[in-house]
Amino acid sequence: MTVRALVLGAGGFIGTHLCRALAERDYEVVAVGRSRKPMVCGGNEGAISWVRGNFADRKLLQRALEGCSVAFHLISDTAPALSNADPSADVRETVIATVQFLELAKSSDLKRVIFVSSGGTVYGIPSQVPISETAPTDPLCAYGINKLMIEKYLALYSYLHALEYCVLRVANAFGELQSTHHQQGVIAAFMKATVNGEPITIWGDGSVIRDYIYVGDVVDALVKASEVADLSHRVINIGSGTGMSVLDVANAIQDISAHRLEKCFTPARKVDVPEIVLDIGRAKQVLGWAPSTPWQTAIERTYRWYDLHARDRVREQLGPICLPG
Amino acid sequence: MTVRALVLGAGGFIGTHLCRALAERDYEVVAVGRSRKPMVCGGNEGAISWVRGNFADRKLLQRALEGCSVAFHLISDTAPALSNADPSADVRETVIATVQFLELAKSSDLKRVIFVSSGGTVYGIPSQVPISETAPTDPLCAYGINKLMIEKYLALYSYLHALEYCVLRVANAFGELQSTHHQQGVIAAFMKATVNGEPITIWGDGSVIRDYIYVGDVVDALVKASEVADLSHRVINIGSGTGMSVLDVANAIQDISAHRLEKCFTPARKVDVPEIVLDIGRAKQVLGWAPSTPWQTAIERTYRWYDLHARDRVREQLGPICLPG
Repeated sequence: MTVRALVLGAGGFIGTHLCRALAERDYEVVAVGRSRKPMVCGGNEGAISWVRGNFADRKLLQRALEGCSVAFHLISDTAPALSNADPSADVRETVIATVQFLELAKSSDLKRVIFVSSGGTVYGIPSQVPISETAPTDPLCAYGINKLMIEKYLALYSYLHALEYCVLRVANAFGELQSTHHQQGVIAAFMKATVNGEPITIWGDGSVIRDYIYVGDVVDALVKASEVADLSHRVINIGSGTGMSVLDVANAIQDISAHRLEKCFTPARKVDVPEIVLDIGRAKQVLGWAPSTPWQTAIERTYRWYDLHARDRVREQLGPICLPG
Repeated sequence: MTVRALVLGAGGFIGTHLCRALAERDYEVVAVGRSRKPMVCGGNEGAISWVRGNFADRKLLQRALEGCSVAFHLISDTAPALSNADPSADVRETVIATVQFLELAKSSDLKRVIFVSSGGTVYGIPSQVPISETAPTDPLCAYGINKLMIEKYLALYSYLHALEYCVLRVANAFGELQSTHHQQGVIAAFMKATVNGEPITIWGDGSVIRDYIYVGDVVDALVKASEVADLSHRVINIGSGTGMSVLDVANAIQDISAHRLEKCFTPARKVDVPEIVLDIGRAKQVLGWAPSTPWQTAIERTYRWYDLHARDRVREQLGPICLPG
């Protein structure tokens, strides 16, 4: 039987990749996003119904939920580095809307919600790396607090109303289609600057260590979280399991691009904790998942995409965005 | 120098006791509450300025904050057992208003915020008792989730803006003045029923264990948290450190009242976890605090108050409420 899946935040970076992957796996996809339908060529596009609207619109959500047995929640209204400027905005826009969504889900066909949380912010400054899911959660940005709050509400609805859920605490995702708006994605920002011949901006001295995970592997984890029969744990880290400094990333891009990158160092931001590397043992155990795209493959594939698309903004706005097959 | 203290939620159970205790200790108290000024006789009432208004009113808060170096945040818009009926209401009313308050505090004279969190709900079902502050926090009601989120926002503002804070995770407080509305306070509910000659209602079989702490001891901890120079920990359990079943409580009241209590058993509620007993070692270490009112003294004092006041509702509404000296 065809599974009908709701994707909330379908027009975003991970959402677009996820919709395509689900359609290829013969899901019927109800894709909800704020913008017009993203033009992504390739894949089984006919299986995707696009619903343009706001996540806080109850009537729209109620209709979108019809017949869906699984929902992917990828909504964020802000980004880590920007969230502290207006800390209550994301509570209003995302947390309250999520609770409204869960209220609607109670009287729908929905069986399971998969939520993309933030492995990079919910833990705050870790006392040890790699960070396991049982580590303390002391976020240093409103973005992380609100992700955590949604995790707790999912647990509450599971307890009270038997709505299944799985939280994926995703590390720094990167890959084709990632936007460079909202100070998200250092790899996207570096690549876009590089292909445009601009200097790259490094906050601090570049020693900050992050866990970079290719979007294809993230999507693979999302699909597995929706399909695995027994979710013996509900909160699961998704990362590469290894750390890399921002300078390492810059050097890797320099090697691919064959250009000498001009580095512009600016003061460190308080929101950036020194080191995040996620322990991904639980993902292997519960989901049977491990990242399968080698770093070099992922970074080359991503660079090729920026080289094709980001250089020419006019083309990006007019034509379909091509993903490799 | 006189310290000016802001009490948010000053008209409530703990708030009223706290204002009186602060006034007696020669604080200047700015007391903010939604209702008219509670009429509580006794104590140094002249030191308390009453501000009637809503916690979400920014202008009112801005004025109230003037010259205050410490604020006590005792605001809750709901109660644990009721919060799941409309889970987003408390997010709107309390969490967002708290973030607005913290934004105002950034540009005020405020040095420290003391927040009353919930030892009975933030932990969820504990894996072991007594529960230490480092135990996992998996609330089973919206009330607990929202308390936890406010804790996280306090930590964020401390990190970003050097605003000191102390979170007291208070167990089941009881004592004079506790309301029996909103299904709060099993001791208050039992005593009120007893003095009115009504049966007491027990959810489940009465085996649920809680950690009951006298309001005078809670207020003592609040004052200590505002005065201690070095807050080496920011999150501190406040309880008696011992557990007592609901049936034990009923029997203790029966012994004092010399009436045979008629017990009415109703189905257990999902919100009630089987056992909560807080580890209070950290409170001793950081605040130099331990509960000092013996259980028997506290329960007798409380019963005397209900016997005097709760029996006659008309009198409760017209005359001042007397507290023992």
